[in-house]
Amino acid sequence: MKDLSGFVERLKECNADVHKAREFTPFIVDGKEVGKMRAGFVDIIRAYKDVFTLQRGREGFVGLAPELDTCEKRSQRVAEVLEALRKEGVITGWRDELYPVTASFYEEPVMLIERAAATHFGIKAYGIHVNGFVRDPQTGAIRLWVARRSPTKPNWPNKLDHIVAGGQPHGLIPRDNVLKECAEEAGIPPALAATARPVGAVSYTTVSASGYKPDVLFCYDLELPPDFVPVPQDGEVSEFTLRPLEEVADLVANTTEFKTNCNLVIIDFMVRHGYITPEMPGYLKLVSMLRSGDCS
Amino acid sequence: MKDLSGFVERLKECNADVHKAREFTPFIVDGKEVGKMRAGFVDIIRAYKDVFTLQRGREGFVGLAPELDTCEKRSQRVAEVLEALRKEGVITGWRDELYPVTASFYEEPVMLIERAAATHFGIKAYGIHVNGFVRDPQTGAIRLWVARRSPTKPNWPNKLDHIVAGGQPHGLIPRDNVLKECAEEAGIPPALAATARPVGAVSYTTVSASGYKPDVLFCYDLELPPDFVPVPQDGEVSEFTLRPLEEVADLVANTTEFKTNCNLVIIDFMVRHGYITPEMPGYLKLVSMLRSGDCS
Repeated sequence: MKDLSGFVERLKECNADVHKAREFTPFIVDGKEVGKMRAGFVDIIRAYKDVFTLQRGREGFVGLAPELDTCEKRSQRVAEVLEALRKEGVITGWRDELYPVTASFYEEPVMLIERAAATHFGIKAYGIHVNGFVRDPQTGAIRLWVARRSPTKPNWPNKLDHIVAGGQPHGLIPRDNVLKECAEEAGIPPALAATARPVGAVSYTTVSASGYKPDVLFCYDLELPPDFVPVPQDGEVSEFTLRPLEEVADLVANTTEFKTNCNLVIIDFMVRHGYITPEMPGYLKLVSMLRSGDCS
Repeated sequence: MKDLSGFVERLKECNADVHKAREFTPFIVDGKEVGKMRAGFVDIIRAYKDVFTLQRGREGFVGLAPELDTCEKRSQRVAEVLEALRKEGVITGWRDELYPVTASFYEEPVMLIERAAATHFGIKAYGIHVNGFVRDPQTGAIRLWVARRSPTKPNWPNKLDHIVAGGQPHGLIPRDNVLKECAEEAGIPPALAATARPVGAVSYTTVSASGYKPDVLFCYDLELPPDFVPVPQDGEVSEFTLRPLEEVADLVANTTEFKTNCNLVIIDFMVRHGYITPEMPGYLKLVSMLRSGDCS
């Protein structure tokens, strides 16, 4: 594992077609760009003229009707539109989970929207990913707990995943989200989950048929006792396996078995734990690509 | 320590006056930009017409005479110029240490130049910084070994520094440089130094009266046994002290006691060890600022 090109490929997949972002129409609220929409989605929502405004031309953008001047009013009126689009089959995979719409993580949201609409609006979405690992007490060798997503999951069925990962919903701080997801996804008790250590963040931007997806993932390391065994709780995981880091590295470098954004978090883990070293050509490029999206 | 503004200030200091880079003249060798020079330095070297070429105008750049078509020829002829400039007092702080001149770390250098001339030429310089720390076996609390630079050092006298840090010279891989500097600067035996773990890299660009300084630092974590005591070896360090991470954080956030670029590496350490958390406003900005220079 001296060639980092497989890892670079995975990072490129996370940032697929990002050059096409210029074809998208900015979504501007309160003078701030908070999203980007594909032309096809702009054509759909412009029919809702009492909610959305459309400025055409080179400097064109989608906005909201001026009387929608609070977070609450905007969230409510946009939710009505989204409910209609859900019935029309435009928005699928409804989650009943609200995401904040904001120019950056620490700003007050200009509104809240259903998670399933996030990529259509091209809003920044945040998540938490937990590297759950076991260290050999003798050799120090690391094994990583890997989840297999259930075959019935609407997104990324059967793909490999982190032991615990989830979107960052409105109204829950990342730390509490980690505790909640640890319990819900893997049966990790709160006292153990509380030892998860925040270790930074990675970012990427994916452009696809679904829309524009500028994501930031808060990364956590959770060292687990050798005798701890995670248990699938909610039917979203079909199995957990504990794999040597070398095997995980091989899967990341040479396959697309992992859900795309997990690769990014695992590569960051391997950099921080010295599994990937400065002597490997491409190291610095790899390190800088871990945060090639708007990390704010 | 919920306010990250002090840390942000330190990162801004590392990237001081970077907007002035556009006033600098690119240094282009073999079709690649490998440096940037201040107008005053261009005026000095253009006198050496058999070595340097100068293309004027908006697209202007400094180059090398076309007959200097190998690394060896370039290094030799430029060294003669630098020796002359040393005698004239233009280049001070001579190190007798050769730095590679290259567009990125893993490319073959187009030439080698004396380290003291690096900032005049505005070449990318690389370094290694080692966070030497002790973990309390009971509480897990971290203390960091901090060096005080000797009052007689030409650069940054009396400033606080890492236990071990150094420039990355030509012909030595980063790992071996760590071993060498560990022995030379702190008397850390090779077997212990070899446990230093590469954990990533940070980057910044400083513009100053000295010139253009685009640096990349390879970061290492070295967990030391509680009973290990570093010993100044070469007169460059006046004392080593072991300080609680909270105290170090306070020094970084509220003073300029540390040599400027050490702050960057310490902040990265605090992010990776969960001392700075996603709940602190500005976290993501801080994480992205750690690699605001050209990390390649």
